[in-house]
Amino acid sequence: MAEHVLYCMAQSGHSYKAALMLELCGADWEPKWVDFFGGETRTDTFRKTVNEMGEVPVLVHGSRSLSQSGVILDYLTDVFGKFGGADDDERREILRWTIFDNQKVSGVAGPLRYMRTLVKTGENDVTKFLDGRLKGALAILEKHFESHAFAIGDKPTTADFSLCGYLYVRDEIGTDFAPYPNVIAWLERIKALPGWKHPYDLMPGHPMPDAR
Amino acid sequence: MAEHVLYCMAQSGHSYKAALMLELCGADWEPKWVDFFGGETRTDTFRKTVNEMGEVPVLVHGSRSLSQSGVILDYLTDVFGKFGGADDDERREILRWTIFDNQKVSGVAGPLRYMRTLVKTGENDVTKFLDGRLKGALAILEKHFESHAFAIGDKPTTADFSLCGYLYVRDEIGTDFAPYPNVIAWLERIKALPGWKHPYDLMPGHPMPDAR
Repeated sequence: MAEHVLYCMAQSGHSYKAALMLELCGADWEPKWVDFFGGETRTDTFRKTVNEMGEVPVLVHGSRSLSQSGVILDYLTDVFGKFGGADDDERREILRWTIFDNQKVSGVAGPLRYMRTLVKTGENDVTKFLDGRLKGALAILEKHFESHAFAIGDKPTTADFSLCGYLYVRDEIGTDFAPYPNVIAWLERIKALPGWKHPYDLMPGHPMPDAR
Repeated sequence: MAEHVLYCMAQSGHSYKAALMLELCGADWEPKWVDFFGGETRTDTFRKTVNEMGEVPVLVHGSRSLSQSGVILDYLTDVFGKFGGADDDERREILRWTIFDNQKVSGVAGPLRYMRTLVKTGENDVTKFLDGRLKGALAILEKHFESHAFAIGDKPTTADFSLCGYLYVRDEIGTDFAPYPNVIAWLERIKALPGWKHPYDLMPGHPMPDAR
C-alpha cells in the first residue's frame, strides 16, 4: 500500500484538489475509488468507518484519517513543506480563499456540473440560480487575478489547488468562461506547474459506465 | 474606537459567528453596520477598501483587516487563547467542521433564509433545492450530536460558533427542525455559555426598515 491513500473518484473536484497536491509534492500515494454514483457515500458503513460527513475526499496517512479537502491540503503543507504559507498571516490568507472556494466556487460549480452533465436535469430554476452564483464568484476571481499571479500573490499555494477543483472540467459546468480571461490565464499557470495532471488522469472512475 | 471593529449587520449569520466569539471572549469590540440591503457590499468602494469578496464580516484589529468568518475565528483563538484547539489535530478538526459549515450549513441556510424571509420569494424550485441540501447537512449534525456535546468533543470551540451562525433564526429559515432534537439540544448548550447573546442583540440593523 502507498504511504498516502486518497478515497476519491474522477468526477469529484474536491478530491482533485487533494490528488493534485499529492502529485505536485511527489507523494507516494494511491487513489481508492469510491462508488459515489452507486450510493457508497450514503451508506451507514461509509459514514461509520470512513467519513460521517458522507463525502470524499478522505486521506488516510498512517493512523490519521482526514476529511474536507481544505483540511487535507493544510495537513499536506505540513507533511511536505510545500505550497503553504510562510507565516500565520499567509496561512490565514490561504484559508480565506479556501473557504471562499468551498462556499462559492467549488461548492456551487460542483452541484451545477452534477445537474447539467452527470444527471442531465436540463436547464431549470436551480441551474439558473447556481449559474448566477458561480458567475458572481468568478467575477471576484477575475478582478483578483488582474493583479495577482496566484491566489495569495506570486507563488502557487493550496489556495489555488482548492479554487481550481472543478475548473479544468469547465465544459461540463456549462457556464460561459469567456468573460473571465484572467481566470483562464491563472488556470494555465497552474497547468504549467511540473507534474500537473487533469483530474481524469489522476483519479479512477472516468469515463463513467453507460448505465447503472 | 474599540480595539476590534467588526463590519457586520444583524441579519448576517456569518457575521454572528465572529460577533459571538468576540462577545464570549470579553473583547473590547464594536460593530460597524454595513448596508448590505442597500447594496453597500456590491459597491466598488467597499470592494476596494474593505473586502474584495464583497462580503461581511470583516474584522479590523490594529493594522490587520481579515475577512471570511472562519479566518476571523481562527485569528481570535490566537488573540484570546480561547475556544481553539489544543494541538494541530484539534485545530484541523475545528477547521473540518468550519468548512463543512460554510459549504453545507451556513452556506445553504443563509440564501434560504434570505429568499424565504428577507426578500420573500415564496416557495419555488430553488427554495426546495436549498431546503433539501440543508436537511442533508442537519441529518449529519444530528447523528454527530448523538455522541458529542460540541462539534469537536466535550468543549465549545469556534467550530460550534461557525455552525450555529444561522441557527438561532430557525423560524426565518423556515425549515422544520423537529427531526433534529440533538441539534436543538446542542444549540441550547451554546446558548447557556456565559455572555451568549442572540444575533439581533449583538449587531445593528434589526428590525429592518419597512421600505427601501
